[in-house]
Amino acid sequence: MGARVKEILSWYASDSPGTRTNLARLLNHGRLAGSGRLVILPVDQGFEHGPARSFAVNPPAYDPLYHFQLAIDAGCNAYAAPLGFLEAGAAEYAGEVPLILKMNNHDLLHDEKDPLSAVTASVSDALRLGCVAVGFTIYPGSANAQTMYQQCREMIKEAKAHGLASVVWSYPRGTDLSKDGETAVDVVAYAAQIAAQLGAHVIKVKPPTQHIEQPEAKKAYEKASVPISTLAERVRNVVQSAFDGKRIVIFSGGATKDNDETFYDECRGIRDGGGFGSIIGRNSFQRHRDKALNFLSTVMRIYAGELK
Amino acid sequence: MGARVKEILSWYASDSPGTRTNLARLLNHGRLAGSGRLVILPVDQGFEHGPARSFAVNPPAYDPLYHFQLAIDAGCNAYAAPLGFLEAGAAEYAGEVPLILKMNNHDLLHDEKDPLSAVTASVSDALRLGCVAVGFTIYPGSANAQTMYQQCREMIKEAKAHGLASVVWSYPRGTDLSKDGETAVDVVAYAAQIAAQLGAHVIKVKPPTQHIEQPEAKKAYEKASVPISTLAERVRNVVQSAFDGKRIVIFSGGATKDNDETFYDECRGIRDGGGFGSIIGRNSFQRHRDKALNFLSTVMRIYAGELK
Amino acid sequence: MGARVKEILSWYASDSPGTRTNLARLLNHGRLAGSGRLVILPVDQGFEHGPARSFAVNPPAYDPLYHFQLAIDAGCNAYAAPLGFLEAGAAEYAGEVPLILKMNNHDLLHDEKDPLSAVTASVSDALRLGCVAVGFTIYPGSANAQTMYQQCREMIKEAKAHGLASVVWSYPRGTDLSKDGETAVDVVAYAAQIAAQLGAHVIKVKPPTQHIEQPEAKKAYEKASVPISTLAERVRNVVQSAFDGKRIVIFSGGATKDNDETFYDECRGIRDGGGFGSIIGRNSFQRHRDKALNFLSTVMRIYAGELK
Amino acid sequence: MGARVKEILSWYASDSPGTRTNLARLLNHGRLAGSGRLVILPVDQGFEHGPARSFAVNPPAYDPLYHFQLAIDAGCNAYAAPLGFLEAGAAEYAGEVPLILKMNNHDLLHDEKDPLSAVTASVSDALRLGCVAVGFTIYPGSANAQTMYQQCREMIKEAKAHGLASVVWSYPRGTDLSKDGETAVDVVAYAAQIAAQLGAHVIKVKPPTQHIEQPEAKKAYEKASVPISTLAERVRNVVQSAFDGKRIVIFSGGATKDNDETFYDECRGIRDGGGFGSIIGRNSFQRHRDKALNFLSTVMRIYAGELK
Amino acid sequence: MGARVKEILSWYASDSPGTRTNLARLLNHGRLAGSGRLVILPVDQGFEHGPARSFAVNPPAYDPLYHFQLAIDAGCNAYAAPLGFLEAGAAEYAGEVPLILKMNNHDLLHDEKDPLSAVTASVSDALRLGCVAVGFTIYPGSANAQTMYQQCREMIKEAKAHGLASVVWSYPRGTDLSKDGETAVDVVAYAAQIAAQLGAHVIKVKPPTQHIEQPEAKKAYEKASVPISTLAERVRNVVQSAFDGKRIVIFSGGATKDNDETFYDECRGIRDGGGFGSIIGRNSFQRHRDKALNFLSTVMRIYAGELK
Repeated sequence: MGARVKEILSWYASDSPGTRTNLARLLNHGRLAGSGRLVILPVDQGFEHGPARSFAVNPPAYDPLYHFQLAIDAGCNAYAAPLGFLEAGAAEYAGEVPLILKMNNHDLLHDEKDPLSAVTASVSDALRLGCVAVGFTIYPGSANAQTMYQQCREMIKEAKAHGLASVVWSYPRGTDLSKDGETAVDVVAYAAQIAAQLGAHVIKVKPPTQHIEQPEAKKAYEKASVPISTLAERVRNVVQSAFDGKRIVIFSGGATKDNDETFYDECRGIRDGGGFGSIIGRNSFQRHRDKALNFLSTVMRIYAGELK
Repeated sequence: MGARVKEILSWYASDSPGTRTNLARLLNHGRLAGSGRLVILPVDQGFEHGPARSFAVNPPAYDPLYHFQLAIDAGCNAYAAPLGFLEAGAAEYAGEVPLILKMNNHDLLHDEKDPLSAVTASVSDALRLGCVAVGFTIYPGSANAQTMYQQCREMIKEAKAHGLASVVWSYPRGTDLSKDGETAVDVVAYAAQIAAQLGAHVIKVKPPTQHIEQPEAKKAYEKASVPISTLAERVRNVVQSAFDGKRIVIFSGGATKDNDETFYDECRGIRDGGGFGSIIGRNSFQRHRDKALNFLSTVMRIYAGELK
Repeated sequence: MGARVKEILSWYASDSPGTRTNLARLLNHGRLAGSGRLVILPVDQGFEHGPARSFAVNPPAYDPLYHFQLAIDAGCNAYAAPLGFLEAGAAEYAGEVPLILKMNNHDLLHDEKDPLSAVTASVSDALRLGCVAVGFTIYPGSANAQTMYQQCREMIKEAKAHGLASVVWSYPRGTDLSKDGETAVDVVAYAAQIAAQLGAHVIKVKPPTQHIEQPEAKKAYEKASVPISTLAERVRNVVQSAFDGKRIVIFSGGATKDNDETFYDECRGIRDGGGFGSIIGRNSFQRHRDKALNFLSTVMRIYAGELK
Repeated sequence: MGARVKEILSWYASDSPGTRTNLARLLNHGRLAGSGRLVILPVDQGFEHGPARSFAVNPPAYDPLYHFQLAIDAGCNAYAAPLGFLEAGAAEYAGEVPLILKMNNHDLLHDEKDPLSAVTASVSDALRLGCVAVGFTIYPGSANAQTMYQQCREMIKEAKAHGLASVVWSYPRGTDLSKDGETAVDVVAYAAQIAAQLGAHVIKVKPPTQHIEQPEAKKAYEKASVPISTLAERVRNVVQSAFDGKRIVIFSGGATKDNDETFYDECRGIRDGGGFGSIIGRNSFQRHRDKALNFLSTVMRIYAGELK
Repeated sequence: MGARVKEILSWYASDSPGTRTNLARLLNHGRLAGSGRLVILPVDQGFEHGPARSFAVNPPAYDPLYHFQLAIDAGCNAYAAPLGFLEAGAAEYAGEVPLILKMNNHDLLHDEKDPLSAVTASVSDALRLGCVAVGFTIYPGSANAQTMYQQCREMIKEAKAHGLASVVWSYPRGTDLSKDGETAVDVVAYAAQIAAQLGAHVIKVKPPTQHIEQPEAKKAYEKASVPISTLAERVRNVVQSAFDGKRIVIFSGGATKDNDETFYDECRGIRDGGGFGSIIGRNSFQRHRDKALNFLSTVMRIYAGELK
């Protein structure tokens, strides 16, 4: 096994060999295998945003098998989805790509300022489907955050007890946060810290902006002259906030970008700031399959250092 | 084993030998081993206040291993932290310093007048990580206090059933209390009493001020002429309120002090009033490591009676 | 065993021999052993009112052991307290005085019109500590009463399943009651009935006043010409309301009385009205120990019929 | 509480206050209350030997209530019997005499050289019936001893977890032992040691004879010149073998003696050798009640030191 | 922490930090703390051989507290004993010496060619008593070995799940083995391998003789020219057989030696062959305390390398 993967696994020495084995599976699969970088395909938008908004632009994506095949052909490290999507293809694609079962989900038929996702799967489902990890979303800043922290914590504990790894989507959102605050560098860094303290192995956050939301945090950034003017600098601050870089932090791709170059630049920023990779949903499956494969190939070449 | 530790253990005769063994481990470790005094390093600020406010001033402190090493090198009795921080170093530092797993946590991305911390760990985690005790925060005065008392009580019961000790952070806070009331001597004494009645072995409170918050308590203090003009006198009253001194009461260091002498004087007051020691987070890790070691050394010399 | 105790036990024939054994232990201990009368020492004021208001007037009472010794030396039937206070002395005083574990508690740092006590102990704690009974407070009249009734019921059920007895503190309080209504004879009688219907073995209420709170109850009292002009008559009505005297009803001593004679007269009223005794906290431990022993001796002589 | 009882309880400091409370109840009941000596009435012969052999000689003894009353009137410390006998009187006699539930039993309709008693009751029965302790028979020397040790251990563990005490009848018997060997001093001492190692609070053995069964033990006795010529000396050796006298060891009365003086001498030997008392079944209930009361009174006066 | 202890702990990286913490406690206590060598005091002979053979030669050893004090004063790494012996002193000596709870036991009142020990304690007892490890005896070669392997495996699994370490006494014995075969080098090495394969952290075997029991093993030793003429060589072979020295293997002291020099030479052989130390019962407590302390001091100096 490559030295970088060994180094990453050493950060998780409190975990069982089983959990570390599943982390290794994640890190050693696909085009970026062994590099310590990851590109993951997540497809939970059917649940989170509804099917029309998610799949109408590229109808083959209505088919769950489409995404398994896309993740495999693109050489992603893993494919993450809710229970139903995984159940629809896990048998046919058994052993072909590491799977992450998304354990909780939220839909827009009832939306709220302080969201609380529903727990829609279990660790036994993850074992049954051959997953390497479970995924859970928390919304720091929500009035319901405490409930989600506790559910997340229970889920992580049970996953570890069964030798699985855990991925936490940590997305600040709620009545106490401004819209800009949701991606403010201080808030994203705080969200990464919370996920790490809850015991997450892999943490997914949004790329941080230069905005600072909390007055007390602003003072701390200014006093310590923390550089945050470039994305790379902000990513570095977020990764540092996840146990000084000793937790795997990946960044979401967000809504479909008009211009792929913008996206690639974001990846470069993540890479140069020491981020571990990207988790790219809509930008992958909301375009024609051939274009998606090209797009993901470029992203991976950036992370592999083959492209500047 | 020293006579003072034996005396302290005798107060916990209803507990199992296992729980008393873990209390002994706490009391017999580090520079103050055997003295009946404790200095504990707690680092939950990354969760409670966010990483920038906590660590930007001394960036090595972003690294969880930094705090294990600091607690060891300073000769602290124990190191207390949330799940993620302990998991990040418990394997590497196994057996080197007594660990306290902080079982619930609160963050500032959603704050409220009547806080309720999320339960973020379990007794089985504490056993798995080799901890000597579990820690739990209650906020007497919060409209959510009842919920926290019950969670705390369950956690203590399960800890005792598995031979662990318990530490309760008892911090008055809530809509019914004025800001000054949070550290009023009557309120701090009351908070210590509540923690003791819930079965805590070690109680952590804030240093009390001369303010008296509750009118009925004011009458009682005045009628009985309880002296509260010096910190030592107030500490004595708080310790007395924790079963006449038969529970271990330690005091938080609070926010970083501008002047170390102010801090040292506080320690002298705690010591002279019969307090059992300090639990010092920000004043320890929010400065350069060398300065922190000097600072903690002075604090320990004060508690050891080597410095007046 | 005395005939009166046998008679009292016969009222609880649906209970297991274990529960009746523990009731017998309660009735057959101390100076009033065998008489069918009880004087119990309860000390939960440290939690309920705070330590200063409870103990500053008689500082030795800060020490949990003080109360065990007071109950023993005074010849009380039992000593009742929250978890922490019992844990602090149960090993040292094992077998010396029947113990009642107070299972829920309320504090004044956050007060409310419709109180809800926190459950702070369990039946397994009661077994572990060698208690004869568990105690539970309900606040009939509180908007939270239903929650407490259900918790109380669960606690009684589990206590009975383990051969323990149950004591219910039934204290009317809440937004729908006037201050006078809390001790109105109709309300106290109603509170006694509710506790009895919940399955309590021993019921603790406040001495009733001549006030009648509920208009419909007033009509009933008047129509039936229920005599309520003396305390003895009102006590008789309350005791009658607890299954025609077939449940043990005892009366709280309340706040410290200025004049002991007032207190003694109250005891005479309770005795003459068929009350089973008193549960006397503040009037016992908020005075010098020697005076407390004299005071309790007088109370017991009244209940024993040695003093008119 | 008397100093001797306090001293005895101090040997059980690893046990919960609940278990110590029940031990105190055993030691503080009846005529020998507080002396540290015990006389217990056991009636399991109906099961063990059959009703005719047990009760025909004194027909009132067929009635389970007879034995409760006998134990009470004689002032025994406790009454021990199987489930059915206790169930038959526990309600009527609730709280009048400490009860010990005999948890396993053996009958003679099927006998064997290597006996294995059937488990016929549970700790929940003991709680339901108000018992202070559970009792269990082991047959060291039986080919089935391992099974009984494990059952005994489970029973003791559960009893302790519920605050009860445990009494172990340790009766060597089996194919590897000669008939004389069953009461040989080395074998009885060994049986006492095994019961103590299994966690028994009270150990019941047979009075040892001067015979030594095991050749290797014989060498040890001779080499160390252990005096075993008188019963007192042998009792001393057996008591020493139960943790140097730090476990309560009592001796069975065995079959009906022709001559009471023989029995009294045996009690004197037990007393003078530091034994804690007797458990006397057949010699008590296989004679007329009046004679039994006289007989037990004499035995108790011997143990109380009132008779030489 | 010393480098050697760190190295030893690295062999157990699949275990939780809790288990490693308890191994570290074992390795870092007493006179040999940090050296990677251990001298442990085991006292299960009262159960295994009977009290007379065990303690008559040095009567203070009948007292369970004697052995706690001996282990402490001699500076042993740990004290190992059955449930009763540990319960008798665990409260008084809480935290003073690492404890190992012996989980199964065998007695000689019924002996057999193919022994099966009774399970006499549980992991919850070990937690309650504050133990660092559980101990279990297996008899490879017994017709009952499979049963013991399975019990041992269950016990180790539960111990690890609760953060405890495990010690396995692996003593070949049974109808298929000759008397000489029980200590034959091939058999002892095989017994060490079996214990290691069952997941033991610490393995206790008897010092091996030059005899080879199994014909096929004899061929293998001869073909590979394994040197076994000195004890050091044979110890090296046994230690190698326990995962190439990556499991802690200690050696039993056996019956009292007539000549201490013989014993010291054995320790030298164990040390020089890479053995990790000795577990010395009878040679320690079957002599006067002063002599035992001198004796153990010499043994420890040999292991520390202070004596050749």
